[in-house]
Amino acid sequence: MVECDLLIHSAAQLLTLAGGPRRGAQLGALGLVADGAVAVRAGRIVRAGPTAEVRAQVRARAELDARGRVVLPGFVDPHTHAVWAGDRAHEFEQRLAGATYMELMAAGGGIMSTVRQTRAAGLDQLVAETRPRLRRMLAHGTTTLEAKTGYGLELDAELRQLDALEQLAAEGPWTLVPTFLPAHAVPAEYAGRADAYVDLVVDTLLPAAAARLPRWAARNLPVFCDVFCEDGAFTVAQARRVLERARDLGFGLKVHADEFVGLGGTALAVELGAASADHLVYTPEADIAALGQGATVAVGLPGTPFGLAQSDYTPAQKIIAAGGVLALASDLNPGTTWCENMQMVLALACRYMKLTPSQAIAAATINAARAVRLEAEVGSLEPGKQADLLVLAVGDYRQLGYRYGGNLVQTVIKAGRVVVENAPAGA
Amino acid sequence: MVECDLLIHSAAQLLTLAGGPRRGAQLGALGLVADGAVAVRAGRIVRAGPTAEVRAQVRARAELDARGRVVLPGFVDPHTHAVWAGDRAHEFEQRLAGATYMELMAAGGGIMSTVRQTRAAGLDQLVAETRPRLRRMLAHGTTTLEAKTGYGLELDAELRQLDALEQLAAEGPWTLVPTFLPAHAVPAEYAGRADAYVDLVVDTLLPAAAARLPRWAARNLPVFCDVFCEDGAFTVAQARRVLERARDLGFGLKVHADEFVGLGGTALAVELGAASADHLVYTPEADIAALGQGATVAVGLPGTPFGLAQSDYTPAQKIIAAGGVLALASDLNPGTTWCENMQMVLALACRYMKLTPSQAIAAATINAARAVRLEAEVGSLEPGKQADLLVLAVGDYRQLGYRYGGNLVQTVIKAGRVVVENAPAGA
Repeated sequence: MVECDLLIHSAAQLLTLAGGPRRGAQLGALGLVADGAVAVRAGRIVRAGPTAEVRAQVRARAELDARGRVVLPGFVDPHTHAVWAGDRAHEFEQRLAGATYMELMAAGGGIMSTVRQTRAAGLDQLVAETRPRLRRMLAHGTTTLEAKTGYGLELDAELRQLDALEQLAAEGPWTLVPTFLPAHAVPAEYAGRADAYVDLVVDTLLPAAAARLPRWAARNLPVFCDVFCEDGAFTVAQARRVLERARDLGFGLKVHADEFVGLGGTALAVELGAASADHLVYTPEADIAALGQGATVAVGLPGTPFGLAQSDYTPAQKIIAAGGVLALASDLNPGTTWCENMQMVLALACRYMKLTPSQAIAAATINAARAVRLEAEVGSLEPGKQADLLVLAVGDYRQLGYRYGGNLVQTVIKAGRVVVENAPAGA
Repeated sequence: MVECDLLIHSAAQLLTLAGGPRRGAQLGALGLVADGAVAVRAGRIVRAGPTAEVRAQVRARAELDARGRVVLPGFVDPHTHAVWAGDRAHEFEQRLAGATYMELMAAGGGIMSTVRQTRAAGLDQLVAETRPRLRRMLAHGTTTLEAKTGYGLELDAELRQLDALEQLAAEGPWTLVPTFLPAHAVPAEYAGRADAYVDLVVDTLLPAAAARLPRWAARNLPVFCDVFCEDGAFTVAQARRVLERARDLGFGLKVHADEFVGLGGTALAVELGAASADHLVYTPEADIAALGQGATVAVGLPGTPFGLAQSDYTPAQKIIAAGGVLALASDLNPGTTWCENMQMVLALACRYMKLTPSQAIAAATINAARAVRLEAEVGSLEPGKQADLLVLAVGDYRQLGYRYGGNLVQTVIKAGRVVVENAPAGA
């Protein structure tokens, strides 16, 4: 008999997501166990399977009865811009009242408004504004998230965003993976001189951020570098300069690609062995084919076109047909999509990317874990992994995606500890 | 000095929505008071205005400090199908996996699946399945809702749905307005004989339901009769028969119109002085013009096209330009849109009906109250009205619509009593 701290048992449906990241048509394989159980010791899973089998192998100090409930891995949100100061609610209203994005930009709005507010914020303010966002994400089931810098666009402010992430990662209980994104936009003071800004990024910002890599490595966490490869932001050549330098400094790589125009960012990501290429709305067919061959995860962000009321979404079924590894993320940010609820992202993915609930769940757990290269630690319920799991208030996983706008998560367990108990009405 | 039970004071923004239902371009008038207060006595509002003025006039037994918060009327959801048994999550998955609606119908799915499950459910089960939905609606800020029968489609089952609504209305704390909708669909046993079913509705079902009107009148609540006027459901002539009989029996009137085809249901609603015409996606121009002249509220249900991933929504700005009274509702139902969160409905309306946050708020409060003819009781914060109000966790009303997928409501007050306190992370 194995001693364990906690036995979650009798789940109507246990979704293990066992077997590693899913490529192509394997996406929807949930590893569903009826009447399932998970045994936890010292924050890690020691057994997962049918309740009768698990019970026969463990002696538990505490039990959680999941009768009539779904148990699944905590969500992994592999693309957020969760650290910023201020908001752009006023701009949202102006846009609906008829102002164009160009008019808003001319009035100092758009991303530059967030850059201004974020530059002006001290570390304590950044942490204080970001913490409740992470708490709400956790309350909706996100136990691991990635978060990017990119609203500093200058040395001090970019490093301050990174410091805020480090402080929040230390606080927990979430797992927080940082991404350095100094090439998120060309800052106003470099307008028309993008190459000069890339020089600054490559020569100054990346090396300064790289000095922090050992501290993250001590937490067993990777650090990524991302770049916004898009018309009006950075060309493929500029993105390559940033990414190659970042790779040499020890960062993992990510690319914002094809959100508005298919420039070639996805092919670049695959060529460089990036962990993920994200957005992928206008991805050329050849680049979709490359995703099917490469190691780069394709991350769809359906909240973004939804937030902007646009009609084109990531062509998920094409990526699946090509054999790609598809993941989902929220893209949480103050401009296009302020949504902290991965269940809502699943609901959008079902409707607009035509994923089934099972595909969406795998894309938001094990495949999302792969997008931040943590697939050996989180994203599935298998012996040895962190015990990050959700107990839903419902007994059928298909309720995810079908219902929307609420919170079906009843209990959030992070590293074996109950960190959220939502009120029963939450379901 | 007026004695009062509760003083909610110092709100960053108090939205009174005073002045009655909003027609046309007046929609967005919020009655915004900076540093506002509301005084409550015996469940009713006695004062609402600037904190300094209200304080000078009242002596309060208890206070609620709303510093840095928005205070606004509780949402009124004037169109729901909240009473049903079972769910259709499995069908949602089949649809995404490629099954057509006709294939699902042939396999006993679609609305007939819900009718079967609802007919088979006893009163206790109906109440037990519906109650948590109303609780979740309340937790997201809906203090008044309408709910329809229409999954019985036979005498006993329709009356049982009405009984369930009566029991839930008595339980509270919500205000619940019932609508009798026996002509929601032609039941399977009347396939091809819609006129014969309309005979049954007119001769038997409506009179039986009408016998309950005095009990609702004793609660000071109207009872409506609604009909689904649509290709494949009921023609304009059939709808007219149902509605005229219902009117003669003392019901208020509502019409499901133009969800898929512009048949003329809206013009019929205006002609008969119906309280509302609902859906209005494919409404003919002449019928939009009629809404501008008539007393019938136009109720947009953006969750429905969203739920079905369709691209056409209620042409809100046309209805506003015509001088119509526009309201919003959830259409909560187990087939097309299971969403219990009016804040999500506002977010959809901003994006897809191009309402500003202020227009969406008025459409979901005072104008929605008018759609259930309770505009003298709820929907605004004015002396004499029920003290149904929300304290948001944020200080700017524009956060509604801008942020989505979560719950910005911190405190729900119904008839002067705090009935929901959401966890701080809820925002």
